[in-house]
Amino acid sequence: MYRAPVNEIAHTLNHVAGMKKALEDGLYGDLSEDLVGAILEEAGRFAGEEVAPLARIGDEKGAVLEDGAVTMPPGWRELYRNWCEGGWNALAAPPQWGGQGLPMTLAAAAMEMWNSGSMAFAIGPTLTMGAIEALEKHASEDLKKTYLEKLVSGEWAGTMNLTEPQAGSDLHALKTRAEREPDGTYRIFGQKIFITYGEHDLTDNIVHLVLARLPDAPAGTRGISLFLVPKYLVNEDGSPGPRNDVFCASIEHKLGIHASPTCTMIYGDGKHGRQPGAVGWLIGQENRGLACMFTMMNNARLAVGMQGVAVAEAAYQKALAYAKERRQGRAPNDKGAGKNGGMSPIVAHPDVQRTLLTMKAMTQAARAIAYSCAHAMDMARLGGSETAAHWQERANLLTPLAKAFSTDIGVEAASLGLQVHGGMGYIEETGAAALYRDARIAPIYEGTNGIQAIDLVMRKLPQSGGDHVRGYIAELRETAERVRGANMPELGETASRLAAGIDDLEEATDHLLSLVADGKAESALCGATPYLRLFSLAAGATMAAGGAVAGSNGDAARVTRFLAENLLPETAALKRQVIAGQDSLLAAAGLLDG
Amino acid sequence: MYRAPVNEIAHTLNHVAGMKKALEDGLYGDLSEDLVGAILEEAGRFAGEEVAPLARIGDEKGAVLEDGAVTMPPGWRELYRNWCEGGWNALAAPPQWGGQGLPMTLAAAAMEMWNSGSMAFAIGPTLTMGAIEALEKHASEDLKKTYLEKLVSGEWAGTMNLTEPQAGSDLHALKTRAEREPDGTYRIFGQKIFITYGEHDLTDNIVHLVLARLPDAPAGTRGISLFLVPKYLVNEDGSPGPRNDVFCASIEHKLGIHASPTCTMIYGDGKHGRQPGAVGWLIGQENRGLACMFTMMNNARLAVGMQGVAVAEAAYQKALAYAKERRQGRAPNDKGAGKNGGMSPIVAHPDVQRTLLTMKAMTQAARAIAYSCAHAMDMARLGGSETAAHWQERANLLTPLAKAFSTDIGVEAASLGLQVHGGMGYIEETGAAALYRDARIAPIYEGTNGIQAIDLVMRKLPQSGGDHVRGYIAELRETAERVRGANMPELGETASRLAAGIDDLEEATDHLLSLVADGKAESALCGATPYLRLFSLAAGATMAAGGAVAGSNGDAARVTRFLAENLLPETAALKRQVIAGQDSLLAAAGLLDG
Repeated sequence: MYRAPVNEIAHTLNHVAGMKKALEDGLYGDLSEDLVGAILEEAGRFAGEEVAPLARIGDEKGAVLEDGAVTMPPGWRELYRNWCEGGWNALAAPPQWGGQGLPMTLAAAAMEMWNSGSMAFAIGPTLTMGAIEALEKHASEDLKKTYLEKLVSGEWAGTMNLTEPQAGSDLHALKTRAEREPDGTYRIFGQKIFITYGEHDLTDNIVHLVLARLPDAPAGTRGISLFLVPKYLVNEDGSPGPRNDVFCASIEHKLGIHASPTCTMIYGDGKHGRQPGAVGWLIGQENRGLACMFTMMNNARLAVGMQGVAVAEAAYQKALAYAKERRQGRAPNDKGAGKNGGMSPIVAHPDVQRTLLTMKAMTQAARAIAYSCAHAMDMARLGGSETAAHWQERANLLTPLAKAFSTDIGVEAASLGLQVHGGMGYIEETGAAALYRDARIAPIYEGTNGIQAIDLVMRKLPQSGGDHVRGYIAELRETAERVRGANMPELGETASRLAAGIDDLEEATDHLLSLVADGKAESALCGATPYLRLFSLAAGATMAAGGAVAGSNGDAARVTRFLAENLLPETAALKRQVIAGQDSLLAAAGLLDG
Repeated sequence: MYRAPVNEIAHTLNHVAGMKKALEDGLYGDLSEDLVGAILEEAGRFAGEEVAPLARIGDEKGAVLEDGAVTMPPGWRELYRNWCEGGWNALAAPPQWGGQGLPMTLAAAAMEMWNSGSMAFAIGPTLTMGAIEALEKHASEDLKKTYLEKLVSGEWAGTMNLTEPQAGSDLHALKTRAEREPDGTYRIFGQKIFITYGEHDLTDNIVHLVLARLPDAPAGTRGISLFLVPKYLVNEDGSPGPRNDVFCASIEHKLGIHASPTCTMIYGDGKHGRQPGAVGWLIGQENRGLACMFTMMNNARLAVGMQGVAVAEAAYQKALAYAKERRQGRAPNDKGAGKNGGMSPIVAHPDVQRTLLTMKAMTQAARAIAYSCAHAMDMARLGGSETAAHWQERANLLTPLAKAFSTDIGVEAASLGLQVHGGMGYIEETGAAALYRDARIAPIYEGTNGIQAIDLVMRKLPQSGGDHVRGYIAELRETAERVRGANMPELGETASRLAAGIDDLEEATDHLLSLVADGKAESALCGATPYLRLFSLAAGATMAAGGAVAGSNGDAARVTRFLAENLLPETAALKRQVIAGQDSLLAAAGLLDG
């Protein structure tokens, strides 16, 4: 069973992401390191004792659709009620609407733990948090007053409605339409697919945020508006009133996260409501819906990245527990095996140790990146106006890494964890297979990892003419130098491995920056995915090492050393793919036409 | 839907594995290249038109246990009957018992295609083939006469019974016991788990090969005997008679290959038969059962390796078909996008091309290794006594690569293929998720891939004092030189990449050979898994390049070039893990005790 790694998380927050300094600088008001610790403890307890025990029944029973209504798995309504009562839904929400206004860094850490408990559970509130943010930033005061308090408390839930059958990643092709009504509201007509928690029985109302096009809107993404469409129209007194003309037509039969209902939502077919069309309210300005969505997007991407870290951690813990129990073969140098019929616990076998440490080291790197990304988001918001633009660029830069690298290693760790279980891993009862199934969605949703890589190369590297990323690499070098200077014995050869990895990163970055500057998009795009991994390995290892030194943390240092000496050398091969891979790629691409 | 890549398979057989030369040398009697082609065509047709269409219902319905009887999914009995009538069960079986006696190379190619159609289907006959081989090599004439013809025709099926709850990879711990009867038979008592196709309704009888211990047997693996235990005792006239005291107590609820019943088998609890104990017949000599099992093991490992190649190929085809249909975004240099609302098929995006080519190139490398392994098995059996020992060592060397590398890349390709589908990949109806689930068993069964890596380092490298592997590496160098000399334009920089990869392989090999020679098992074992991958990449790419040159095959050459220039550079990082990874590994392993 999952136990939140509160010490490792606190170490990463304080010494890797920079929370300790931010607390000391008073950035977070009267929040103290002690209070942070207490919140982490309690969030970890909730994740381990309340969420995790319901993961299996959620996977087995799933969410069930009948007559347009979705029933959640047994126990999940109570779990959600406890969640709201514990105040967890309100963790990062604005105090004005009942939230606790805690930093994104802390929210990210808590999200990791809840997702380790159950990805299918934690993704629901994540959607609500996104809706809160979009409303807070862009909605009218009236809409805020009607909806925000109930969303913050968790009494109502939120959703994001982007995808349509013909428009997944490419929102140009969006067809859902909105018509203006004389009273200032709109009527929405169309079909949305893959709507996470689009329908369920956890809350009395569901607040859909829906992208749609006005009749006179310009073509493409500049003609998209964002609307709030509640499942139940809201009465004057704030209570849910008549049903709106929106319903769930089907839910998907998915590989994993079975308890998360993935809905096809139909707007305006006249099934509910007197006049056809789902009643909607505009959020922000007409035709500026995408800008409102983008507000949520970075946070949502970080949230999905946390799912990657979370499932990797859960898979590691499960595999380690099994490896300590299961005895097979005799490991070299295992003195205890004789007492046990000559068989060692498989954790004593070097090959199993390599597997487990690979999982742990990748998790460490991903956590370092993701928490640092959250910290940059906090700094952009709270750190003062002189540095806000800098930190926003930092958050922009780290977001695709946090999303894609974390979720890639989530899948890899879940697969390795299953492997550690041997034949038992393939049996569903063991639970390792469920993690392997759950993990697989995270590289896909909120922008596939390929799209993250493209975003990194085409939009994030050119920030400030390339100066931002160059500055970041310079910071990594300083950290690596500090690591060298600290000469911490547990770090072994880490410092020189970091230097080599940063060299690879710099060379690949310069190469891509010049391709993009020269308009050679195709060549640059050929290297996007290996570049994202190269960047993540170099940055993750460097930040982890810096944190181990700053926190004088020998255990963290040992993990980082394994990362640096065993996994980081891959950067050389990745750099080669970025710099010298495109000719063979483009030459062979013709074979795909056949 | 899957279409067998008959041309690529024939190319690999003839020009990579060496079948063309073997045919010309008359090694296979009157088998001709034309006949091989016709068999491949027909096997491919059967795989694509008969097996593949039943994969989905097999996954959905699975095998069902009720009252000790397993019912196979709808249509599967007919499929199996057609399979037997087509003569496919008998492909590689000895002509003396009704088989066609075709080479293992050809059987491996056919196995690949059937497994691409459905892993859950093809694994069943694979078990029967293993049983045929064990009986042919080790059983008495009486047993052969009673069982072989019916196993070869497919009228009866075979199983292998090794695993017990406490004895998975480690057969030392085996507890199932056998007692001698006055009439020369034995009575078997015990429980076996994870028995593939242990019970089903495809055949009139099932022939279990069971490892068990005699009461006076020495401890450990030298006290294990192999028994034949039929589900129905056989009458004088060869027909199935009374039920034997063996039954299926449960079947596993697995992540994938749902139509393959994975059974817990109970021997001798008195439920069937008058006298308790399942009646068994000794195969080979008492206490020499493991040697009999080892006969089957190499072939079974190759067969599982074929599953890896197969699922990678199937995933590639499915992803490619989707990528040609699905339109999203506008690819650089896509002139056709304008006609389609500005959206390109995703196959036009470089990042998707990289993904698909990675799948294709890994499949090419794995196929090269696996078919070459099968060829070595053929040469050991048919190539004459002077070279038999050499070829047996070659088969021994390549078997762990064929098993582990192929199945690792099978999982990787299935995961990448799912990713190409985006959100649709996560929906079960699409079928990409089923491949991801099915693929995951292959790195586990028939000896986990970790065990393959250990076998490679500890037992295969030291063959002939290291001379065999050194000779093989020298052959790879010759091939790489031939590739350089051919100067085939489609191969780009392949020759120099091969040279670098072989350098890495040689250095890592020397390092491990000396560790093993010095008795430093722990250090050697730390590098086993990265070494197996390094070996596979270098050998697979070199053999594939040699084949492209020998067959003047430009398409194959383009794939190999992508492999050599994009994926092969990983060997440098892998070598580093082998040579310099163990210190950080052993230093961090202490963290796993906590």
